[in-house]
Amino acid sequence: MKTYLDCYPCFLRQALEAARQSGADETQQRDILNGALDALRAVDPASTPPEIGDVIHRMVREETGTADPYQQAKSAATRQALDLYPRLKALVSEARNPLGTAVRLAIAGNIIDLAPVGEYDLWATVERVLDQPFGIDDTAAFQRALANAGAVLYLADNAGETVFDRVLIETLDLPITYAVKGGPILNDATEDDALAAGLDQVSELVSTGSDAPGTVLHRCSHDFRRRYDEAQMIIAKGQANYETLSGEGDRLFFLLQAKCPVMAGDVGVPMGSIVLKQG
Amino acid sequence: MKTYLDCYPCFLRQALEAARQSGADETQQRDILNGALDALRAVDPASTPPEIGDVIHRMVREETGTADPYQQAKSAATRQALDLYPRLKALVSEARNPLGTAVRLAIAGNIIDLAPVGEYDLWATVERVLDQPFGIDDTAAFQRALANAGAVLYLADNAGETVFDRVLIETLDLPITYAVKGGPILNDATEDDALAAGLDQVSELVSTGSDAPGTVLHRCSHDFRRRYDEAQMIIAKGQANYETLSGEGDRLFFLLQAKCPVMAGDVGVPMGSIVLKQG
Repeated sequence: MKTYLDCYPCFLRQALEAARQSGADETQQRDILNGALDALRAVDPASTPPEIGDVIHRMVREETGTADPYQQAKSAATRQALDLYPRLKALVSEARNPLGTAVRLAIAGNIIDLAPVGEYDLWATVERVLDQPFGIDDTAAFQRALANAGAVLYLADNAGETVFDRVLIETLDLPITYAVKGGPILNDATEDDALAAGLDQVSELVSTGSDAPGTVLHRCSHDFRRRYDEAQMIIAKGQANYETLSGEGDRLFFLLQAKCPVMAGDVGVPMGSIVLKQG
Repeated sequence: MKTYLDCYPCFLRQALEAARQSGADETQQRDILNGALDALRAVDPASTPPEIGDVIHRMVREETGTADPYQQAKSAATRQALDLYPRLKALVSEARNPLGTAVRLAIAGNIIDLAPVGEYDLWATVERVLDQPFGIDDTAAFQRALANAGAVLYLADNAGETVFDRVLIETLDLPITYAVKGGPILNDATEDDALAAGLDQVSELVSTGSDAPGTVLHRCSHDFRRRYDEAQMIIAKGQANYETLSGEGDRLFFLLQAKCPVMAGDVGVPMGSIVLKQG
């Protein structure tokens, strides 16, 4: 997805939010704001939003010396999701269509965001997403791909959402490679976050080798690129993976909630829609 | 009010909004976005938000060659408010406390904003504001000031809101000077807009001599400055007048709705509050 002009105000907002999350004082916050204005003036307009976000958040980490501003938020989100895990498993085992339910749960987990735990109601989201009609529903193609694939590469999104991914992975009867970020960026899952959610018990955990948001292929490790190139089927979770990989072909299936008006417009669905989209 | 760091993303958003309102194409919109990034990097951080808004919107007008992007929106808002005028007058004449009702109506009119007519429900706002408790209620001081003042200087805000101001002015038994902008800025009322709302029939219409948002005193005409300095009592409508004149003394009474989280925080009220604040 291209970076829309409407993304620029949001990058400024994100820079301030990350600065505050890192404990920056007013002077540091102003320096970071100015740094973000300079960075936005200098970026290649053809970059995807996660590539620009990467520049912004790297600058904030360097200015504040805080390597992982969202560490506590990530741990809290993982714990909260793990508390729900038995109920999520029960929903799948009692479902008439376990795969459909597990897909919806994986999408429900995408509600987890930078907002502090408690500012969204995770269980209410689960109940909403179980009943909500899809904005885009490529379930048939998804099921065909699963039937034909010998394995799946699964691109993770946020910490906490990982637990919902685990429920879907446990429902799939295929070997799964679960790819997490190579270093802290926003509340994206790293290896530590995936381990805390137990993903190593149900998949082969790998790193993309990059700490950019989403999956910026030219920033990923050689090993990950090889796995990506060879994958028969790829499940890509969340907004940043859509923004970096949309249009990359029919092997890809994007599972997400449309939480941002710009991205929702690009996907072609109303805000708040749930999406299972091929390609 | 100082410009908070959180205002900067909003200035970028406003630049894009005004560019689109002026019919700018994608290339022009990007030029305007870049111009706004440069302007925000260069502004004096001690400026009030309307002073920075003035720089941004002037740049947009120069880039697009559109002197008054909101002309149609202003006319539509005035017409919509005039349609309600008989009902507003009836509310006041039937009220047990006509002055209190007219003050609330003047505050209700402050809901009119840059959103296209129809995106807010004007009559529903009237009904809400008639019943809503004040976030800040300096009514007693307001009534004392009215009793002691020989005349009132009334600083206008948006077109359309002017009609609600007219209802309040007709309720006050004092000579009123109604000050409008010296040229188009956002949807603020100019002389033409005030004439369309009939304000010349109930007050002496004057210009601030400035086309900055709010009332940036050092940008106003000598004549307006004299009127301002000599006024015994000043009613200042809306956010930008608060942002430029808060702390300027007990002669001033701000009537507004808190529609922006940053300004609401500065005033010290929850979002959506109605405010009658002295000083």
